[in-house]
Amino acid sequence: MPEARNHAEAVTALDIGGTKTAAAIVTRRGEILDRVTAATPGRAGASAVLDTAAGLVEQLRARSAGTPVRALGVGSAGVIDHRSGRVLSATDVLTGWAGTDLRGTLRRRLGLPVTVINDVHAHALGEARHGVAAGRDTVLYVAVGTGVGASFVVGGTVLAGAHSAAGHAGHQPSPYAGSLPCTCGGQGHLEAIAAGPGLAGEYARRTGRPVDDLRSVAARAEDGDDTARDVVALGGAAVGSAVGGLVNLLDPHAVVVGGGVTGLGAPWWQALRDAVRRETLPSLADVPVLASALGSDAPLLGAASLAWEVLA
Amino acid sequence: MPEARNHAEAVTALDIGGTKTAAAIVTRRGEILDRVTAATPGRAGASAVLDTAAGLVEQLRARSAGTPVRALGVGSAGVIDHRSGRVLSATDVLTGWAGTDLRGTLRRRLGLPVTVINDVHAHALGEARHGVAAGRDTVLYVAVGTGVGASFVVGGTVLAGAHSAAGHAGHQPSPYAGSLPCTCGGQGHLEAIAAGPGLAGEYARRTGRPVDDLRSVAARAEDGDDTARDVVALGGAAVGSAVGGLVNLLDPHAVVVGGGVTGLGAPWWQALRDAVRRETLPSLADVPVLASALGSDAPLLGAASLAWEVLA
Repeated sequence: MPEARNHAEAVTALDIGGTKTAAAIVTRRGEILDRVTAATPGRAGASAVLDTAAGLVEQLRARSAGTPVRALGVGSAGVIDHRSGRVLSATDVLTGWAGTDLRGTLRRRLGLPVTVINDVHAHALGEARHGVAAGRDTVLYVAVGTGVGASFVVGGTVLAGAHSAAGHAGHQPSPYAGSLPCTCGGQGHLEAIAAGPGLAGEYARRTGRPVDDLRSVAARAEDGDDTARDVVALGGAAVGSAVGGLVNLLDPHAVVVGGGVTGLGAPWWQALRDAVRRETLPSLADVPVLASALGSDAPLLGAASLAWEVLA
Repeated sequence: MPEARNHAEAVTALDIGGTKTAAAIVTRRGEILDRVTAATPGRAGASAVLDTAAGLVEQLRARSAGTPVRALGVGSAGVIDHRSGRVLSATDVLTGWAGTDLRGTLRRRLGLPVTVINDVHAHALGEARHGVAAGRDTVLYVAVGTGVGASFVVGGTVLAGAHSAAGHAGHQPSPYAGSLPCTCGGQGHLEAIAAGPGLAGEYARRTGRPVDDLRSVAARAEDGDDTARDVVALGGAAVGSAVGGLVNLLDPHAVVVGGGVTGLGAPWWQALRDAVRRETLPSLADVPVLASALGSDAPLLGAASLAWEVLA
C-alpha cells in the first residue's frame, strides 16, 4: 500500500460495476494512493450495492487518516443522470438499480460532495485526462465487453447527451451483424455480433457447439481452431468498421479502445486496425487508434477528476 | 428587395457551392436584408470563383450604402481549415479549390474581417441558431444531396474535428449499401446508396435502364413505377438507419435533415422515420427528427452568425 499520509488532500473514487466495485484515494494529479475492491452484490438490490460501495470508501478513509478526503467521484454501470446523480436505467445485472439516488444517498451517508457519471464515460475521462489520450482535445473511447459502449470527450468534458444516454455505440447498424437480434430489442446492431456474448454465439452458430463464453473461443483460437480464429477476426473487423465510420464522422484527435474483449489480443487488434484503415478517408488515416492503457484504474481516475471539479 | 438602410450595422455572408454562389446582408438577429445569387464558375478555377463571390459582396455593399457592413462569414464547399480559412480539399466540381486561401484573399479584396467554415457546417449552424433547432443544445444535422454530410453542433459551436474534417457521415458502413463502391474509394458506405447518384444508380441497376438523375426516379415513383417507389423508400430507410444509430451514440437534443434528396417528399421521409424508430433505443424514441426549415438561407445565416462572433 503506497503512503497516503504525506498528501495535503485527496478525493475518493468509486467504480461500481456489475461484478466488482472498486474504490480509490486519488490526488489532484491523478495518483492513486490506496485502493480496495469487493464483489458487487448486484442481485441483492440497490441498498446492498450502496452498502458495499460506502463501506469501501469508509475503509479507505480510515486507512488514510492523515490525508483529508474532500469529495467523492462515482463511475457506475447504468444510464446516469449526471445532473441529479440518479440512475435512470440499468441492466438486470444490478437488480433494482434504476431509480437509485446515488448522489443523494452517498452524500448523506459519507458527508462528502458527490458527483456521479456512467462508468464508460468515467473510463473515457480517465484515459483522456491521465492516460493514453492525455493532451488530446477530442477523444472517442469505445468499450467492447459484455456490451459495446462509447464516450466522446470534447475538451475534457464528456458529451453525456440530452437524456444522459449518449454512448450507446453498440446500437448502430453493422453490416457484420446481419439480422441478429440485439439486447435492445432491435436487430443487426454492432453489439449483437461484436460484444463478448455476440462472438461466443457466433462460434456456437458456426460449429453447432455451444461455448461457455468468449474465453473458450479465445482458447480454441490459440489452439489452432480455424473457426475460432475466424470469429475473433470477425469481432475485430466489426468493431474496426464501426470505429472507421465514426472517425469519418467525428474526426477525433484520438480513438481509445478498451474493455474485456480487447483481451483477445493481437489477431483481434489486427483485424480491427485493418478495418479502420479500409473505412477511413485518406485524410484521416493518421487518426491514432490506441489501446486503453490504465485498465481498471481508468474509471477511478476519471471519476476522481470530476470530484476535483466539484471542489473547484 | 427589403429595405436595408434603417439598420445600424450588418454583416455579409457567402455560400459558395458547386453550382451556385449566394450572398446576403444579415442583421445580428439573423434577418436577411438583401441577397443576390450567381452561378459558380466552378470549372474555371479558384480565382474565377473568388471573383464571382467578391463581386456579389461588392454588389450588396453598394446597394446597402446606409448600413455599414462589418464582417464577412463564408460557408464553402470543401474541407475548410476553420482556423486558417484555407480550403484543405474539395471535389472536382470546384477545380483547383484545394489550397485556396479563402480568408486571406477575401479579406484583402474586401477590407473586412473574414471567417470561413464548410457549407454543411454553416447550414447546421443556421438551423441551430436561427432555424428549426433554435434553442436546442446539441444538434445533429444530416445533409443528403449529391453526397451525404453531417455536422454536430454542441452549445452553438460546430465540432469541426482534429483535421477540420468532421461530418463525413456518408462514409459510414451501411447494411443497405452491400459492397457498392463509394466516391471515397471505399465500399459499402451510406453515401454509395443514399445520396442522389447512389439512388439513381440503384434504380438503373434494378431496371437495366439508366436514368439522368434522381429527379427522373422521383418522377417515375410519382407515376406509379413500383421499382422507383422501392428505391425512394430504400433511400429514406438507409438514411434513417444511420440516423438512428447516431442518435443512440450521441443522444442529441434534435436531428435536422436537409439537402436536395429530402425533396423526394413524404414517402422518403416516412421510410426515414420508420427506420429511425427501428434503430433507436426506447429511451431515445422522442429525439425529434426535423426537416431543415431555412432552405438555402440556412448556410447564409450560419456563416453570418460566425461573422458576428469575429466582431464580438
